[in-house]
Amino acid sequence: MASSSSPSVLLFLLLFTIAATAKTSESLSTVFPRAIPGSALKQVPNAKKPEPKFPFKTQYFPQLLDHFTFTPKSSTIFYQKYLINAQYWSHGAPIFVYTGNEGDINWFASNTGFLLDIAPSFRAMLVFIEHRFYGESMPFGKESYKSPETLGFLNSQQALADFAVLIRSLKQNLSSEGSPVVVFGGSYGGMLAAWFRLKYPHVAIGALASSAPILQFDDITPWSSFYDAVSQDFKDASLNCYEVIKGSWAELEAMSAKEGGLAEVSRTFRTCKDIKSVYSAQDWLWSAFVYTAMVNYPTKANFMMPLPAYPVEEMCKIIDRFPHGATNVSRAFAAASLYYNYSGTEKCFDLENATDAHGLHGWDWQACTEMVMPLTCSNESMFPPSPFEYKEFSDQCMRKYGVMPRPHWITTEFGGSRIEQVLKRSASNIIFSNGMQDPWSRGSVLKNISASIVALVTKKGAHHVDFRFATKEDPDWLIEQRRQEVEIIQKWIQDYNADLKQ
Amino acid sequence: MASSSSPSVLLFLLLFTIAATAKTSESLSTVFPRAIPGSALKQVPNAKKPEPKFPFKTQYFPQLLDHFTFTPKSSTIFYQKYLINAQYWSHGAPIFVYTGNEGDINWFASNTGFLLDIAPSFRAMLVFIEHRFYGESMPFGKESYKSPETLGFLNSQQALADFAVLIRSLKQNLSSEGSPVVVFGGSYGGMLAAWFRLKYPHVAIGALASSAPILQFDDITPWSSFYDAVSQDFKDASLNCYEVIKGSWAELEAMSAKEGGLAEVSRTFRTCKDIKSVYSAQDWLWSAFVYTAMVNYPTKANFMMPLPAYPVEEMCKIIDRFPHGATNVSRAFAAASLYYNYSGTEKCFDLENATDAHGLHGWDWQACTEMVMPLTCSNESMFPPSPFEYKEFSDQCMRKYGVMPRPHWITTEFGGSRIEQVLKRSASNIIFSNGMQDPWSRGSVLKNISASIVALVTKKGAHHVDFRFATKEDPDWLIEQRRQEVEIIQKWIQDYNADLKQ
Repeated sequence: MASSSSPSVLLFLLLFTIAATAKTSESLSTVFPRAIPGSALKQVPNAKKPEPKFPFKTQYFPQLLDHFTFTPKSSTIFYQKYLINAQYWSHGAPIFVYTGNEGDINWFASNTGFLLDIAPSFRAMLVFIEHRFYGESMPFGKESYKSPETLGFLNSQQALADFAVLIRSLKQNLSSEGSPVVVFGGSYGGMLAAWFRLKYPHVAIGALASSAPILQFDDITPWSSFYDAVSQDFKDASLNCYEVIKGSWAELEAMSAKEGGLAEVSRTFRTCKDIKSVYSAQDWLWSAFVYTAMVNYPTKANFMMPLPAYPVEEMCKIIDRFPHGATNVSRAFAAASLYYNYSGTEKCFDLENATDAHGLHGWDWQACTEMVMPLTCSNESMFPPSPFEYKEFSDQCMRKYGVMPRPHWITTEFGGSRIEQVLKRSASNIIFSNGMQDPWSRGSVLKNISASIVALVTKKGAHHVDFRFATKEDPDWLIEQRRQEVEIIQKWIQDYNADLKQ
Repeated sequence: MASSSSPSVLLFLLLFTIAATAKTSESLSTVFPRAIPGSALKQVPNAKKPEPKFPFKTQYFPQLLDHFTFTPKSSTIFYQKYLINAQYWSHGAPIFVYTGNEGDINWFASNTGFLLDIAPSFRAMLVFIEHRFYGESMPFGKESYKSPETLGFLNSQQALADFAVLIRSLKQNLSSEGSPVVVFGGSYGGMLAAWFRLKYPHVAIGALASSAPILQFDDITPWSSFYDAVSQDFKDASLNCYEVIKGSWAELEAMSAKEGGLAEVSRTFRTCKDIKSVYSAQDWLWSAFVYTAMVNYPTKANFMMPLPAYPVEEMCKIIDRFPHGATNVSRAFAAASLYYNYSGTEKCFDLENATDAHGLHGWDWQACTEMVMPLTCSNESMFPPSPFEYKEFSDQCMRKYGVMPRPHWITTEFGGSRIEQVLKRSASNIIFSNGMQDPWSRGSVLKNISASIVALVTKKGAHHVDFRFATKEDPDWLIEQRRQEVEIIQKWIQDYNADLKQ
C-alpha cells in the first residue's frame, strides 16, 4: 500500500487528503471530519423550517467578524445562528449553552438530548450556538470557504469570543444578567466548553466537556494512543477480529497490485462503479472501524450512522462468524458494511463520492492551522504502522490552503502541559466526561484535578454518549454518570446563588 | 469655557482631542497619555545603544502580526523588542516578566527599579517586553500608525498573546521550561499583568498588578471617581488650594473672553508665543494637576517630570503662600509651574507644541477602540463639571480613526462585574497594589478577593510607587508594601515548586 511509503499522509490526513470516500458518510467524525472537496456550501440566508417536533426556535445574531483586531474589515457583521428553547425557563433561572462545534448546529442539538432531558428540573433555557463557518453561520456567505483570506477568521478563539458576546447580549435582552450560564459541549464542542470556562469564567459558571481531547496536542498525549484505543476496542471484542482487520491491509494491497486488481477490489467491495485507487477501499474500511469505535454506544443509535447497540461487538461477530479460509479482506468488508449499511438497503457502495450532510469540512482548515493533533499508528495497532511527519503535513497544508500550521499555538493559548498543576490553582467547575471505548478519551482529562475539576470516566462509554437522550435501555453506569453530572451542576448553581447573596 | 458646551470632549478626551498642549510634557500619563497629532514616529530598526549603566541587553523577537486569524497577512512577522537581565539567574530559577505598556520599554524599565532590587534574592531573570506598536516594536515600521488597517492590530489581546508566545519561546531557548514565570506591570501594564494571569495561568504562576484600573470600564466604577480622587488629593493638602484651583477655570475663561484676552492669558502663562486658544492654557493646568496627583510620590522622583517629594503638597504650599487678593489663575499657574519647571530653568512655556518623548500616543487609538474608560467631573471635583457623552465620543473616534469604539468589549473579554465572585472561584495568585493618592486606584481592586488574590493598599501611595527603586528616604509603609509583595511572590514560587514535586 502506498500508505507505507507516505504513511503520515494516510494517517493524519485521515483529516483531509484521502477524504471523500464513503458514499453514505453522513458519517463523519465530529472531531476529525473528512473533507469533501468541492462540496457545495449550503448557505441559507433564511432559517430553515424547523422539523416537526424540533423543540427549538432558530435565531440569528449579528456577530463581529474579528474580535481581536480593529481594522475596518474586522467590524463587519455576519449572522450567527443559534437555537433557543425557553419553555421551561423563568426569569433569573439558568441558561444552558451548547458551544457548537464543527457542523450544522441542528445536528448537534438533535444529538444532545441530555440537555432537553435535564432542562425541566433546572428550569433552564437551552441555547445551542452554531460555530462560525459551519451550518448557516457563514461570515462571507457562499464565499466563506473561498480562500485563506476568508477562512482565516475560522478558529477556536474567535468562536469563543462569539459565544461570549452572544451570551452577554442575550442575557441583556432578557434582562436576566444574573442568570447563571453553564456551557456544554461534546468532542471539539467539549474542548470549546472547557476552554470557555477557563477563558471566560465571568460568563460561564461551569462547563461540562464531554469527550473533549484538549490534551491531544503537542506531545502531551502519546500520538499512538488514538489508534491504539480503536484497536483495543476491537481486541476486547475478539482477538480474532482484531487480527483479521490487522491482516486485511496487506491483503488488500496485494489484491490491488495484481493484474485487474482494482476491478477485483471493486467487486469485493460491491462498489457502484469501479474504484480508481485502492486507497478508496482502504479509507472506506478505515473510517468504518474508527467511527464505529467512537460511537460504540450501549444502545441502538444514529449519530453518524444508524447502528445497533455495541456495534464494535457486532462487527466482530460478523468477522468471527465467517467460515475458516475466508479472506481477511472479505471479512473486513462485511464488518464495515454494518457501518455503511445497517439497514440492509444499500445495493452498492460509492466509495469515491462522499457527501457532507452535516457541513463538517471546515475542520480540515482548522486542522491545518491551529488544531494540529498528531496521530500515529503503532505496531500494536490494527492499522498499518505510520509515523507523523510534521514537514509533510505542513507542506500539504501549504499546498491546499496556502498557510502554514501553527502547531504549538493551541497549547500556548490554552495550556495543556502539567494541566493538573495549572488548573488546580487557577480554575474550577469543569466536568470532563469520557468513555474509555471512545478513542479520543486518551487525549482528555481522565483524573480529578481538584474538588471542582472532575473527571467522570466510564469503562464502556463512547464518544459523548452522556449527551444523548436517555432511553429505557440505558445501562446503569450511564444513568449514574448523568446523575453525577446533574448533581455537580446543581452544586455550581447553588454556590453561584449563595455568592450572589453575599 | 467651551468645556461647558462640549464637556465630554474636554474631559474624556483628555485622551486625545485637546492633547498636545504642554511643551514639556515628557510628562504623559501612563494610562491616559495625550496624543501628539502628527508627531513623528521614532521607528528605529536597529537597537538603540543602551545608556551607560542600563543593566539590560536589548533583544528582538520575531513575533506574529495576528495571533487570532490565519489569513496570509496574519502570519507576517515583526520584531518585538525586549530587554533582558540574566546576571542573577541560574538555570531553573524564576523569570520575572514586565508586561510592557503603552510606551518605550526602556522608559518603563528605568522606572521599575523594584525588579532590579529584588532580582538577586530570587536569582531571577528579568525580562521587559515592549508592547506592540510602541517604542521600536512597530509591526509596519514607519507605516504602523498610518491607518486603521495597520493600527487595527494594536490591542491588548494581541499584546497578551505576544507575551505568551515570546515567554514560551524564551524558556524553550533557555531549556528552562520549568522556570516559574511571574508577571509584573504598572498602570495599563498592570492591567495586562493581571489579565495575563487570568488568561494564561499556564504561562505565569502569578501577577503583581500595580495601579491597574481593570474596573474603570462600563459602569463598574463610578465615572466621577478619577477626578474626585484628584480633587481629594488637593483638598487633603489644603482646602484653600482646592478652592483656588476650582475657581481658576471660570476666571481663566472670563480672562480669555475679554478684548485681548488671549494675549493676557499668554502673558500670565509666560508662553513662548501667544496661544491660539484658551483650551491650551486650560489643558496645561489640567494636566499638571492630574499628573501630579498620579505621581504624588513620597520622595523626590522623575517619572513623568522631575518633582519634589509629595508634589501635591508642594503645589498647595505655592498656592497658599500667595498674598491675599492674588487671582486664582495666577496661583494655579504658579502651582502648575512646579510640574513643568521644577528645575527653574524654563524661561517660557510652549503650551501648543508638545513632545512625546516616550512614544505614548498609540494609547489614543486604544482608547478609541477597546479601552473606553468613561470619566466625568462631578460638581464636587475641582474641575469644571462635565458628563461623558458616548455618542460624542464615538463620533470623534470615527472622525479621527474611521472606527467605532467597542465600549463593552473589555468587560466581555476580561470581566469586571462582580469580580470578587468570579475570581474567588476561578483564579489565584494576583496582587493588586494601589496607593490611594493615585486617582486610578479607585478603578482597581482594593479589597482582598481570596487568600491568594490580594489587595495591598497604602493610604499615601501614588501611581505604581512600589515599582520604583528603593531609596533611603522611603517611608515605612512603602518598605512594608514591597516586603509583603516579595513575601507573597516567594510563596507562589514555593507552591509551584512543591506542585512540581508531586
